[in-house]
Amino acid sequence: MAYPWQHQSSLRSWFPLALLLTSAAANDLSPRGDLHFPLYARGTNLNGSLPIYKNPNASIEERVEDLLPRMTLQEKVTQLIQGDLDGWMNLTDPNDDTKIYNETGLVDMLTSKAGAIWGGYLMPWDKWVYGITTGQKYLMENTTLGIPAIVQSEGLHGFTNNGTTWPSPIGLAASFNAPLLQAAAETIGMEAEGLGFSQLFAPVLDLSRELRWGRVEENYGEDPFLTGEMGRAYVLGVQAGTRRNTSGTAVARIAATCKHFTAYGSPQGGLNLAQVSGGERELRTYYLRPFERACASDPILTGGSTALSLMSAYASYDGIPTISNYHILTEILREEWEFPYFVTTDAGSPDLLITWHYTCADRECAAKQVLENGLQMEMGGGSYTYETLPDQVAAGTVDIRYIDETVATVLRTKFALGLFENPYPYPDYVSTLRTPETRALLHQMEQEQIILLENRNATLPLSKNIGSIALIGPQVNRVSFGDYVFHNATLNGISPLEGFTTLLENTSVNINFAQGCELWSNDQSQFPEAIEAAKTSDAAIVMVGTWSLDQTLLWEPGTNATTGEHVDLSSLNLVGAQMPLVQAIQATGTPTIVVFVSGKPISEPWIQANVDAVVQQFYPGELGGLAIAEIIFGDANPSGKLPVSFPQSIGTAPAFYNYLKDGRPVSPGYITPNGTLVFGHQYVLNTPVPIWSFGHGLSYTTFNYTNLELSSYTIGTSDDFNVTVTVTNTGNVDGKEVVQVYLTDVVSSVVTPNQYLAAFTKVFIPVGGSETVTMQINSTQLGLWSLDNEWIVEPGNFTVKVGTSMTTYLNTTLIVV
Amino acid sequence: MAYPWQHQSSLRSWFPLALLLTSAAANDLSPRGDLHFPLYARGTNLNGSLPIYKNPNASIEERVEDLLPRMTLQEKVTQLIQGDLDGWMNLTDPNDDTKIYNETGLVDMLTSKAGAIWGGYLMPWDKWVYGITTGQKYLMENTTLGIPAIVQSEGLHGFTNNGTTWPSPIGLAASFNAPLLQAAAETIGMEAEGLGFSQLFAPVLDLSRELRWGRVEENYGEDPFLTGEMGRAYVLGVQAGTRRNTSGTAVARIAATCKHFTAYGSPQGGLNLAQVSGGERELRTYYLRPFERACASDPILTGGSTALSLMSAYASYDGIPTISNYHILTEILREEWEFPYFVTTDAGSPDLLITWHYTCADRECAAKQVLENGLQMEMGGGSYTYETLPDQVAAGTVDIRYIDETVATVLRTKFALGLFENPYPYPDYVSTLRTPETRALLHQMEQEQIILLENRNATLPLSKNIGSIALIGPQVNRVSFGDYVFHNATLNGISPLEGFTTLLENTSVNINFAQGCELWSNDQSQFPEAIEAAKTSDAAIVMVGTWSLDQTLLWEPGTNATTGEHVDLSSLNLVGAQMPLVQAIQATGTPTIVVFVSGKPISEPWIQANVDAVVQQFYPGELGGLAIAEIIFGDANPSGKLPVSFPQSIGTAPAFYNYLKDGRPVSPGYITPNGTLVFGHQYVLNTPVPIWSFGHGLSYTTFNYTNLELSSYTIGTSDDFNVTVTVTNTGNVDGKEVVQVYLTDVVSSVVTPNQYLAAFTKVFIPVGGSETVTMQINSTQLGLWSLDNEWIVEPGNFTVKVGTSMTTYLNTTLIVV
Repeated sequence: MAYPWQHQSSLRSWFPLALLLTSAAANDLSPRGDLHFPLYARGTNLNGSLPIYKNPNASIEERVEDLLPRMTLQEKVTQLIQGDLDGWMNLTDPNDDTKIYNETGLVDMLTSKAGAIWGGYLMPWDKWVYGITTGQKYLMENTTLGIPAIVQSEGLHGFTNNGTTWPSPIGLAASFNAPLLQAAAETIGMEAEGLGFSQLFAPVLDLSRELRWGRVEENYGEDPFLTGEMGRAYVLGVQAGTRRNTSGTAVARIAATCKHFTAYGSPQGGLNLAQVSGGERELRTYYLRPFERACASDPILTGGSTALSLMSAYASYDGIPTISNYHILTEILREEWEFPYFVTTDAGSPDLLITWHYTCADRECAAKQVLENGLQMEMGGGSYTYETLPDQVAAGTVDIRYIDETVATVLRTKFALGLFENPYPYPDYVSTLRTPETRALLHQMEQEQIILLENRNATLPLSKNIGSIALIGPQVNRVSFGDYVFHNATLNGISPLEGFTTLLENTSVNINFAQGCELWSNDQSQFPEAIEAAKTSDAAIVMVGTWSLDQTLLWEPGTNATTGEHVDLSSLNLVGAQMPLVQAIQATGTPTIVVFVSGKPISEPWIQANVDAVVQQFYPGELGGLAIAEIIFGDANPSGKLPVSFPQSIGTAPAFYNYLKDGRPVSPGYITPNGTLVFGHQYVLNTPVPIWSFGHGLSYTTFNYTNLELSSYTIGTSDDFNVTVTVTNTGNVDGKEVVQVYLTDVVSSVVTPNQYLAAFTKVFIPVGGSETVTMQINSTQLGLWSLDNEWIVEPGNFTVKVGTSMTTYLNTTLIVV
Repeated sequence: MAYPWQHQSSLRSWFPLALLLTSAAANDLSPRGDLHFPLYARGTNLNGSLPIYKNPNASIEERVEDLLPRMTLQEKVTQLIQGDLDGWMNLTDPNDDTKIYNETGLVDMLTSKAGAIWGGYLMPWDKWVYGITTGQKYLMENTTLGIPAIVQSEGLHGFTNNGTTWPSPIGLAASFNAPLLQAAAETIGMEAEGLGFSQLFAPVLDLSRELRWGRVEENYGEDPFLTGEMGRAYVLGVQAGTRRNTSGTAVARIAATCKHFTAYGSPQGGLNLAQVSGGERELRTYYLRPFERACASDPILTGGSTALSLMSAYASYDGIPTISNYHILTEILREEWEFPYFVTTDAGSPDLLITWHYTCADRECAAKQVLENGLQMEMGGGSYTYETLPDQVAAGTVDIRYIDETVATVLRTKFALGLFENPYPYPDYVSTLRTPETRALLHQMEQEQIILLENRNATLPLSKNIGSIALIGPQVNRVSFGDYVFHNATLNGISPLEGFTTLLENTSVNINFAQGCELWSNDQSQFPEAIEAAKTSDAAIVMVGTWSLDQTLLWEPGTNATTGEHVDLSSLNLVGAQMPLVQAIQATGTPTIVVFVSGKPISEPWIQANVDAVVQQFYPGELGGLAIAEIIFGDANPSGKLPVSFPQSIGTAPAFYNYLKDGRPVSPGYITPNGTLVFGHQYVLNTPVPIWSFGHGLSYTTFNYTNLELSSYTIGTSDDFNVTVTVTNTGNVDGKEVVQVYLTDVVSSVVTPNQYLAAFTKVFIPVGGSETVTMQINSTQLGLWSLDNEWIVEPGNFTVKVGTSMTTYLNTTLIVV
């Protein structure tokens, strides 16, 4: 068979190791191809001096070049496999606090798998500190070369080892507040750092272009630019600063992990791990942009990169598994973007080449494809295919230069993290966990992520002089976190019922709570109680939506959920009795406010058309229950915007706003409330226009836009330009506004998006105040992926639209010459 | 801007004209770049002898080479634009039979637009003959060069100028009987030929991979192989033979038009004209294969092609409009496939570059992009962008060699059709229209396209000794043709009510007809009558489905339809009151048979689960109403198979069977009849497994498969092989069986389909009889589009599965070495 490894890597000069290995030194390889030093002198120099790699003042590249030739083949392969704390610690009981370790297990694990250590376990912090310290100490003091491990956990909306839980990424994105997310990510990194973690598997930069997919909540929405900006904020925040007592060459204290690289957001049928259809232009125009922006484009780290790590994706793109996609992982990532740090596979993904994609018949093939096409470390969760590498090198089926190049990327990350100087937890780790400052930031984020979708007759905010409210629905007395939280994390959260109760503590507002139904049932037997609560209240707040589970329960047979990894929907309608409940409450005549608590859009156009107000709260963090009460009662003014469009039904999806022009003929049909069918063509009885589109979100105040100006109305193809606009708060309360700039390339040599977000910024404007906002747009944002397969900016007209959402704007024309 | 015409064409040696034009002769061009002959001697030779191009015995290429240099630039451009009979005939009243023409209009039209003449009008045949004869006579006798026009109409399921209407292509495909379709297409060609037509815009070779799209009924289903085989049968049939009194170099009497080239079957959101996502591998693996097989791969015509024409598609693929896609229309079609005949645009599609794709700002740009990238004739329906070509040549913006190359493709088709010898209708055209032989073939096709989907307790066939049947539903007293039929074509059809009445004429079976509801309404006021009819009958036949309209009504405001061109659905559920009607009838307890009359799959899993029998009749032809009665009563044994899979709901689509492995995780959930939610993951409350899958179809008899054998179990990468199997009719009635062969490439360097159809054949087997069936599989069918972007067959194992459907089979392993 024609295997992809027939491609030859041609790494560029930024990769000094590649030069080293193709120089004379590389010709001295032993039969096993690896050893440049006498065995007795690898961890030191023959003259007793400190090897360069142990010199904290040497450059990262010097240290990599010094260390790599000292390593045996097995030591190299060990760097390419993720180890696991469970190799030497008994982790079966999350409450157990016994600080003992299994020495045989420790040695076995760390001799064979020590590139990184998986530590994403729910366990007492002090036991964790004991366990990971034991492991790092072994590596530093009991192995010849003393190479510390990267220590890994999850953190896409909070550090998962009992750190603070933030809103799910879709909610973080809804804030449209990148500086706030950066500050939040700083706290996430801070919580992880003290416990000795050095890598978090976040941010997720997949695009939510297929809403059935279970992982929509893990993404920053449907837009490449928003995703890139929010992803970049996360990376800069989580990586901010360096570990204590490290060298001056360390550049970050935590490795962010941009995932899943790439094109993972549109699986066929929305099915988990299913193939993604697309060509090179779609890849470049949509999927790659957030990764380049967030992780690989800024010259703030070695090699021009932002993030210290990436994770490859499970799916295939146009028939090539991403995990063995030479074009994506080597040609684009390593050669075009010159990404110097390490890439990890996802859990068990090398085995998918054998059991899912069927491009390999055995582990040897899988290891070879993953390594040689992708230069990746292998994560656990599978059969550890990389264990075959030593024999494959000996047999000549794998060229050691791929191992060397990949080990170099791992070492580069470790030096950049300063781990050789200090890989240990800090004694005072408790001081950086769950601080009041973090809680205050969380509180702000919880408020800013909530989106006011509809507000008929200024139903909201409710006055605290109101006599009573009914709190109805299965999301009221529940903490609804998204996936990627630890077991029982919800115990740290405030439910909406608790939030309203707290907020209204010192008021005379009566709360009539009636759940009405369960999330997971058609049972309507509790409806009468809910209807009665609505009838006897001055306003009814009905909280419905989707739900996910924590990382333990989500994968456990017998539990149920409607969103989260491997939980894919065939419909975006409310499940079970929820929709009848909403209709029953609305029918009481009591003003009805529907709150969607969900991980993805809900397609219920009846609700948009019939209730008095609709509020979207994507899965919140620990303070979500309080924030929703504050929004409803006006203690906070909503300022969130939709990062993803809400289709009328799954049959009208995709609904993303940035479709290629002009692919949405609109000759809608519909069914009247009395059942009359009014026929159209697109669609026969529906419309492709979403219920609410990307960028939409109301406020309790109003904003007026004036004085749109460009820094220049005619620019060259490589010129940046500024967009300036004055925004005035013309309403009655202070508020934050997300100023959005959209571009359209009017005529282009290839089909370009009908419009796309090019800048946004969130500004606070007091009542009556004005802010003049200037946003810079880089010339590359005018680019398209040309017929000749390169990024170019074409001369011609661009429409520049500025406003409060995608559909409300001032506009002008930019001429590129 | 970087326009695609910066690519340089490098046509190969099969294209003698290209050689001519780059030779010395091409250097003699006048300032207008076109004229090689004195004006007075272009249509004859100076010595009075007949020019080569008028010599019926000269080769086609000699004639093209002789004629082209004699043409003025305007004459060339005239060959590249479709003219229209309405230029000289008053066609406003389809019943008008006045045989007069407008001479100014005639000259104007045929001086500027005469490559082809659109004649797809409903009008009396004798008026048509008068009009087209007038036009061709003018071209032959009153123009200098005497170049006849190709005369065009529609014909994808019957010649649309009041010829016989056959089942829609999706139904023709359901017959899985390629020889029968070839015979049918011969009659279609025969009906058109006599009236002087020389081109029909068929077959449609798009794949039905997006079921919301309105045009699903125009395709041969979801599978590239079935589509290619059925398309090839159509091409061979419609083109069979040559026109009367033509030269020996003529090769076909009608130009089939393979359309829409290409990748038009998966528009985003199912929306008409919307962009298609995909890469080169998906293009090659799925979309291109039927075109190559049906139209461009067989060495039976000049240049190795099968069909005499192609039509380009409206949509874009990976951001490049197909109509200006150099890679598809030139690199693949002209260079790889060496297709020598002409390509036409679709109606008005050049203008879409200005108004839809926005790759052009003006007609000049559109004409240039379409011509230079695609070497196409321009169809009407737009602004005639090609009218700009003479000025563009003069201005130097368009190189005349593209015009010459394209004119050559048009002339080549005309010579291959023998039009220069005889472009006229035949005096006895009536003798070939609607013959008894055609009717007999139609009758067979109508029976063979019907698919028995479910048959609980052998409910079907009904006995003619039954006391009474209820015929219920809005499809009973209706002739439901698909799109692409002439206005009022349904008047030629037999409704099911008429069919049952005719069939049961001499029996004692009572027919109780009650429509129950309209197709287009939720009104249930007629339900009681229908329920009564069911209660008082021994069996109830409920006919429901989708509907389309004829080519006049379909585009008329105020009419309604649920399928057909530009009529896109957001749901595959039955519309209006139809589903409640089915449920009400089933609830009577009378054995209930549901017949779907539709142009696409209907997603109503309740019907599969609850009624006694389900029959699929894709939009039939004129005898469909009789055939369904014959099937129901066992006068004919059903033998159709599904050419397209039926998803559980639109939210579980796509459901096509040949998805890339292993993209369909199945952990289904469901809702029990009493409303209990049983949660799964893929999908949470549904399953990606279709209700009925591609290839499925039952019979009134049973077939047993034995003795599966391969001609060789180990072959080389370029070896063909045979699959042999013995099929025995083990039931109680004679029947036809579609023997199907599926392949799986077990391990491959790229992700290949989980399985794919590689051969099928339909055989008649009497009760107790056996047939040993041998099918050849070409080595190319083992191929994949490799990482190096070429077709290769990889050594390894292939699973070979043979049986009565995709899921019922014998299997064995083929080893490729």
